[in-house]
Amino acid sequence: MNATSAPESERLARAALSRVGEPGHLRLTRMVAEFGARQVLASLHQQSAEADLKNDLAERLRSCDPATELEKAAAKGIRFVVPGDAEWPSEIDDLEHCPPLHERGGIPIGLWAKGPLRLDEAAEHAVAIVGSRSATTYGAEVAADIASTLARSSYAVVSGAAFGIDQAAHRGALSAKGLTVAVLACGVDRAYPAAHETLLDYIAERGLVVSEAAPGCAPTRIRFLARNRLIAALARGTVVVEAAIRSGALNTASWTGGLGRTVMGVPGPVTSAPSAGVHQLIRSRDALLVTSGEEVLEAVGPVGTFTLVEPREEPRVRDRLSSADQQVLDAVPVRNAAEAHRIARTAGLGAEGVKEALARLLAAGLVEHAGGRWRLVTDETLTSP
Amino acid sequence: MNATSAPESERLARAALSRVGEPGHLRLTRMVAEFGARQVLASLHQQSAEADLKNDLAERLRSCDPATELEKAAAKGIRFVVPGDAEWPSEIDDLEHCPPLHERGGIPIGLWAKGPLRLDEAAEHAVAIVGSRSATTYGAEVAADIASTLARSSYAVVSGAAFGIDQAAHRGALSAKGLTVAVLACGVDRAYPAAHETLLDYIAERGLVVSEAAPGCAPTRIRFLARNRLIAALARGTVVVEAAIRSGALNTASWTGGLGRTVMGVPGPVTSAPSAGVHQLIRSRDALLVTSGEEVLEAVGPVGTFTLVEPREEPRVRDRLSSADQQVLDAVPVRNAAEAHRIARTAGLGAEGVKEALARLLAAGLVEHAGGRWRLVTDETLTSP
Repeated sequence: MNATSAPESERLARAALSRVGEPGHLRLTRMVAEFGARQVLASLHQQSAEADLKNDLAERLRSCDPATELEKAAAKGIRFVVPGDAEWPSEIDDLEHCPPLHERGGIPIGLWAKGPLRLDEAAEHAVAIVGSRSATTYGAEVAADIASTLARSSYAVVSGAAFGIDQAAHRGALSAKGLTVAVLACGVDRAYPAAHETLLDYIAERGLVVSEAAPGCAPTRIRFLARNRLIAALARGTVVVEAAIRSGALNTASWTGGLGRTVMGVPGPVTSAPSAGVHQLIRSRDALLVTSGEEVLEAVGPVGTFTLVEPREEPRVRDRLSSADQQVLDAVPVRNAAEAHRIARTAGLGAEGVKEALARLLAAGLVEHAGGRWRLVTDETLTSP
Repeated sequence: MNATSAPESERLARAALSRVGEPGHLRLTRMVAEFGARQVLASLHQQSAEADLKNDLAERLRSCDPATELEKAAAKGIRFVVPGDAEWPSEIDDLEHCPPLHERGGIPIGLWAKGPLRLDEAAEHAVAIVGSRSATTYGAEVAADIASTLARSSYAVVSGAAFGIDQAAHRGALSAKGLTVAVLACGVDRAYPAAHETLLDYIAERGLVVSEAAPGCAPTRIRFLARNRLIAALARGTVVVEAAIRSGALNTASWTGGLGRTVMGVPGPVTSAPSAGVHQLIRSRDALLVTSGEEVLEAVGPVGTFTLVEPREEPRVRDRLSSADQQVLDAVPVRNAAEAHRIARTAGLGAEGVKEALARLLAAGLVEHAGGRWRLVTDETLTSP
């Protein structure tokens, strides 16, 4: 690991602010960005900060001991990554100029992290996959499939460890022996949802569990809203797999758009409520429709690194025929065999040329011939092209 | 019916050309547009036309008797609509400047029509719904549903009477007692596919069956390709419901785009091959994603005539709370009830204000209270927003 790291006094100040301030607290993140963590903390202590901000924070500040906090975290295998550390992902600094949502925003004061994966390395090649907690089996399968394709291409899969799509995305990446990052709304030492304790332990062993909220913090609504901006900011693009009209995944998509990164959406049946939010994103041109991991890679990779070959059917035998022979073939009946002169009339071509063409079509196995009459071998070529 | 009609000599000349020329024959439609039908026919008879064009047509021309042709057609309830007739749909004249596809194109020489619906009136408010012959039940249901919504809004549903999506579209319109137009690649006196004979009879009784190909003509591949341009030209926009990568429906979509009209696509599961062509259309921004008849109406209607209210969920109880009360609510535990001072600490708010807020939340039925401890009534509000 690179030895560069932020000064210890900076880390302690940020640890204190991380403990007392809510994740993504807009005024706090802005003040820290402008004046630095140490000065903001000092002014809070000196009661010289804005009165209402201090009011919200004072109660937490009293019981805060950042040095002990960091020690306890380290004992649980949790590190606190701050700007200036080699591990700090530069991608996340784009949040400084990203429009706030729900009064949340800004560069996080610091990120609590648990797991062997380096955050900066993960963010360098990462894609977020998010979606509905009440996912369908269809959505979960597609999310896992896209995640494993990304993982096999050395992309880290970032998600929120929730039920449904998030879980499927993490599992898809893990099943491909790839990298995955779970960004939580609660402390990284907590399992939320509780049913995902094993999954989160596994991610912490193999990948990375990250949170802006200090260890021990419970997940609350505003922490989810603040968390979603980190999922967006840690990834080059966000894939929304299933999202009902009012889904947290759409909030993550908004952050992604605000960061000027690529929002992608996986369509589903129009009769499926969990796809309605995704369809709305695509309809409003806020998201690119994607149907596979390959299409995601094409969208987020540097131009030219992953060029998708659009799916095409194999050319049919008829495509290899001359256009005159095609015209004759098109005039050969499906069922009731016809004589060559009738076929010529249908085709609007001369009888002699048609007879020669029929011989070629017979050799190609496309028409059959009996008693001076011709008909198609299959009806496939005659139906609507 | 409006009495305006083309001169009889014009109709006869066009009937003859319709019989001898292939639908959408590019050079023929262009010559007729430039020189008029009578002159083109005369020059064909005088062998003064270009040698190779004559060569293709001569064989048919010899046996052609347009007056008898029109009489026989009339006896079967078939009329031949040509430019100059009141019934001629002006919409179709846009084909003059539409780029050709597969060497087909141009304004049709005339249109053979069977049924009580007037072609010009149908085309005034019409939407095409096309798609895969091998449709899924999902696709067929969505096509029928969109068709009946359009029909109930007095739009005629134009399609090609094929198996799958086409059939579902016609049936959807008919089931809503609406108007529908079947545009065939064969003569309007023929049933193709044969299994749709009853459906086509019913459409001819209630709506309209139309073809550029003269009565008796068999369906051939180039006639399907030429037919697709008429489906596009008779409608304000085309909805593709399901289409595999290489589907005739995509050809109709290309014509629609070439005419500068609205191409729409209904998404489906990304695991469903019959949706792959539609997804490609939407991905390439060649089609607008639509999920309902209402969205189709919004896309094709004159601006402001049909303004869609985007689906939104009902606001939740929590949305009616003040933002401070929301913050307190977010800090109330789901399972293990907590005392007010702990909730205040989690919320980062003063204890007094939190106690007042908890009382309001209790009154609103959002939290429960026992033994000095508080917890949420449901866990719904706590999960990822």
